Amino acid sequence: MRIAVVLYDRVTALDAIGPYEILSRLPGASLSFVAEKDGPIRTDTGRLTLVASERLDDVPAPDLVLVPGSPAAPTGPGPLRDWLRAVDAGTTWTTSVCTGSLVLAAAGLLTGRAATTHWLAHDRLAALGALPRAERVVVDGKYATAAGVSAGLDLALDLAARIGGRELAQTLQLAIEYDPAPPFDAGSPRTAPPAIVDRLRAARHLMLDA
Amino acid sequence: MRIAVVLYDRVTALDAIGPYEILSRLPGASLSFVAEKDGPIRTDTGRLTLVASERLDDVPAPDLVLVPGSPAAPTGPGPLRDWLRAVDAGTTWTTSVCTGSLVLAAAGLLTGRAATTHWLAHDRLAALGALPRAERVVVDGKYATAAGVSAGLDLALDLAARIGGRELAQTLQLAIEYDPAPPFDAGSPRTAPPAIVDRLRAARHLMLDA
Repeated sequence: MRIAVVLYDRVTALDAIGPYEILSRLPGASLSFVAEKDGPIRTDTGRLTLVASERLDDVPAPDLVLVPGSPAAPTGPGPLRDWLRAVDAGTTWTTSVCTGSLVLAAAGLLTGRAATTHWLAHDRLAALGALPRAERVVVDGKYATAAGVSAGLDLALDLAARIGGRELAQTLQLAIEYDPAPPFDAGSPRTAPPAIVDRLRAARHLMLDA
Repeated sequence: MRIAVVLYDRVTALDAIGPYEILSRLPGASLSFVAEKDGPIRTDTGRLTLVASERLDDVPAPDLVLVPGSPAAPTGPGPLRDWLRAVDAGTTWTTSVCTGSLVLAAAGLLTGRAATTHWLAHDRLAALGALPRAERVVVDGKYATAAGVSAGLDLALDLAARIGGRELAQTLQLAIEYDPAPPFDAGSPRTAPPAIVDRLRAARHLMLDA
């Protein structure tokens, strides 16, 4: 199984690296990081550089494509959109984490489909023609989308089970000791203190470019 | 606050990137990825390259150092051990994820201290003089260690709260929507199906070099 994880300038690293840590360990999988140009990619914090090993054109037929999110998710026309439309015709799974779903939706791939994204971006996802769901992972046909940033881990385990079976997914979960125990219950706008939710809503411009 | 995340050949990416995604967003923090040499670092899967932006010698006085794990955690003598011993004298926090604690312990920094590591490596941590605890995050003085791979997220939120307060940690948790919902309860040897635990124990040589 050929897996392509898309990179682009200002990508949010964990969106890509969470799923990578699981999907790259699927037996028989060949995962690569692809971008418009191969070479270094600066992430959104400006503190980390990842390397794209292949150009989009080098990977014309991935079985699974994953688009991570970013404060600057590339929703405009261009080579990435063209590539996504072309490869989607042949994928088994077309997937995203966080605002990566905006990129898929802008390419017309989520029109009329249930999908999710970062909790601050549901209105944008709706404006692009998808049907936003306030769920951690949403699967509609072959389109699997995850909520914000860290939700890519849950997406990848879900996909691992669908691709390789429940026992394989459990084995990978135990291998990365994914037995989460956050010290606070503040990871969702439904559970976080209202003042924290309001603060992030007010700072939305810092998290999502205009 | 100067934060140094250590990289080395065959590092496990999520061990580093999980905490990075939180700690790099602490107000006033300056986080960098450091290695014996700057430049590209290949991760354990062979499918990803991260870039170290600075050499160890370029960062002589970090306030917080974090050592991620690997199947090949570098526990031998060498420049990394020397650097860890030197900088530990001035850190506010000396931390690790997964088998990164073996590197700290081998440097003599966890002798007689409570600590944790990947569940398959507790015996090794004990052999290096630390007191292993089967907990997700263990804090003993300024030494904070996390369990396997994904536990770095919980460690980083714990540290964020200690450094910047509870509300800051909750804000960062909500920003990365860390409201985990794994599809299985198999992330710990205490909860995973026994057959899965046995399978990984038998494959331990694949996960930890001899």
